[in-house]
Amino acid sequence: MRTQVCIIGGGPSGLLLSQLLHLKGIDTVVLERRSREYVLSRIRAGVLEWGTVEMLREAQVGARMDREGFVHDGTYLAASNRGFRIDFKERVGATVMVYGQTEVTSDLYQAREKLDGVVIHGAEGAQPHDLKTDKPYVTYTKDGTEHRIDCDYVAGCDGFHGVSRTCIPQDVLKEFERVYPFGWLGILSETPPVSDELIYANHERGFALCSMRNANLSRYYLQVPLEDKVDQWSDHAFWDELKRRIPADAADTIITGDTIEKSIAPLRSYVAEPMRWGRLFLVGDAAHIVPPTGAKGLNLAVSDVHYLYNALTELYQDKSEEGIDRYSERALARVWKSERFSWSMTSLLHRFPDQGAFGQRMQESELAYLETSVAAQTALAENYIGLPY
Amino acid sequence: MRTQVCIIGGGPSGLLLSQLLHLKGIDTVVLERRSREYVLSRIRAGVLEWGTVEMLREAQVGARMDREGFVHDGTYLAASNRGFRIDFKERVGATVMVYGQTEVTSDLYQAREKLDGVVIHGAEGAQPHDLKTDKPYVTYTKDGTEHRIDCDYVAGCDGFHGVSRTCIPQDVLKEFERVYPFGWLGILSETPPVSDELIYANHERGFALCSMRNANLSRYYLQVPLEDKVDQWSDHAFWDELKRRIPADAADTIITGDTIEKSIAPLRSYVAEPMRWGRLFLVGDAAHIVPPTGAKGLNLAVSDVHYLYNALTELYQDKSEEGIDRYSERALARVWKSERFSWSMTSLLHRFPDQGAFGQRMQESELAYLETSVAAQTALAENYIGLPY
Repeated sequence: MRTQVCIIGGGPSGLLLSQLLHLKGIDTVVLERRSREYVLSRIRAGVLEWGTVEMLREAQVGARMDREGFVHDGTYLAASNRGFRIDFKERVGATVMVYGQTEVTSDLYQAREKLDGVVIHGAEGAQPHDLKTDKPYVTYTKDGTEHRIDCDYVAGCDGFHGVSRTCIPQDVLKEFERVYPFGWLGILSETPPVSDELIYANHERGFALCSMRNANLSRYYLQVPLEDKVDQWSDHAFWDELKRRIPADAADTIITGDTIEKSIAPLRSYVAEPMRWGRLFLVGDAAHIVPPTGAKGLNLAVSDVHYLYNALTELYQDKSEEGIDRYSERALARVWKSERFSWSMTSLLHRFPDQGAFGQRMQESELAYLETSVAAQTALAENYIGLPY
Repeated sequence: MRTQVCIIGGGPSGLLLSQLLHLKGIDTVVLERRSREYVLSRIRAGVLEWGTVEMLREAQVGARMDREGFVHDGTYLAASNRGFRIDFKERVGATVMVYGQTEVTSDLYQAREKLDGVVIHGAEGAQPHDLKTDKPYVTYTKDGTEHRIDCDYVAGCDGFHGVSRTCIPQDVLKEFERVYPFGWLGILSETPPVSDELIYANHERGFALCSMRNANLSRYYLQVPLEDKVDQWSDHAFWDELKRRIPADAADTIITGDTIEKSIAPLRSYVAEPMRWGRLFLVGDAAHIVPPTGAKGLNLAVSDVHYLYNALTELYQDKSEEGIDRYSERALARVWKSERFSWSMTSLLHRFPDQGAFGQRMQESELAYLETSVAAQTALAENYIGLPY
């Protein structure tokens, strides 16, 4: 088979890139190791920057999001059970959209299907070849048979554990990493969200987050030690601990119920440089991971797609290589800013084992400062709603 | 002897409090262990917030400062030898004044003398008594003779190592502390400053600061390991290392020369709560220490003086105890915000032994963000010029 851009990975970034390029007349093939059902079962973040919203609309997959998504004009922060609000609309004239990543992926699959986009599921052992030549190709196995796709370029949208990044030689690849000494215990509950906007809570017992999917589906998180196991956390214990950490008025009014999903995820910051090697471009989690605080993971993948989509469009339509030559530099500039924001939100809100009483007071003082400073709120808001591309 | 307010410590905060209270007709005695010459030989910071400038004017000691001080409208920050400027005037409509703490203290001594203020030097072993009664007194020894001062209140302006804080029982006193794993090697040099504004430089070799006292007196600093000794650092080695860390244009144009002072100081954050106990009020370094990054030490002492001076004036003039009852709370609210700023500037600009490549990139990303964000610059500027009292 031959295509122009072979995309490894059928998550939201691979599908979105495929969809956008298709609309510009650029041919793609998407290779996904798992089944569509498996991909759609992964629960991920749900806060979309406005730039992400606009990219989804440009990809003609925004209709259901615009109908069913929740526009959030602000968010709550809290310290020691006392909350205050940051008004994004007032501070920076922009908002975010709450719409689950699962829904985004589902919409993208339908859109790809409608345009007869080629998405090959069950494509195992994908392996790019000859990336430093102008005739790269990707091999994979499906149902026991080896296949080969010849292409102009390869987009590595295959996540942190994917093959794409490993194609960059060790003496070229620079890696930057921080692993945080705690995890997030997350639950889904078919209850109305305690708040119509998110609540990020700093507490000396640990971080808590009140989030939501829709009017009757809540998502709550607790910072827990990495050694904790899900079994140790009964529903009762979860709700009790959550109430201890969130603002008093929220704890008093929260509606609890059975949890329908419960999992513990580690927190990590990671960046790989460069994001281009020969005919390979890394996109999203293949090149970088952020901790979930501030919900930048999907948004950052979409930001990469934005740069790569425009670069490839310029290449095929205008024969200009400037975009692809500057892809790594442009994408990374924004990656580092989002990494910084995610790291700073994580640092501000979590209890660190070695922070001591002084560190706790620094967090509380930063939150007290945020509560009163228009400039500090504006800085937080402009990052939260998404820095310009 | 009897006075209304016995002030322990004849540094700038004790002298300023004495002077301000005197102008309101409130009688004070200042006890200082050292000689005037010794106090004036201590070299300290030299950046005054505008609130400090106004307090000094209110104390009628602003004339020489207004003549000889340097108004700075902004400051430079740098990462990896590339600098950029933050314009305080443009961002927040305010400025700072560069005028050495030694000069402030000298002006205060002269002013106290002119008004026949009582400042007793060589007062050793000062000890407050009966602070929980309405008849407190302070004893001290001078020239081998024990003396006693009866008073209404005691102001502890005697610094971190002074006796005042130790009067608060251990079960009442809460202490918060962070000791940083590096020091500042500072030099004075009779050369023109490399820049007409300060340069704070982040570099992977460590922090550097270009500061100044006047048109022919420069003050430069290098972050060094705490184990380093002054003798290890020849003038030549100092200038070489400074040039490696500061912006390239500054390194190319700096005028070097013999150093006339060279010392290494540790960096510490420290807060004691409460700042009032019975008839004792803690002021300045007696209650809190900040690392020098951002120059908040003297300014924070003046902020405490502001609250205590107003509280005591209300008490003696209006018989209102509200001010003294709320002194600790009011002073500490501002203390914690300045502690936060000093800690965050220190964290942003220094090389920490355990930060790794990711931590270095977080600092560089924060500086890159500061370079482009009006909101982030405004937040930094409003802290640098001094949050409102």
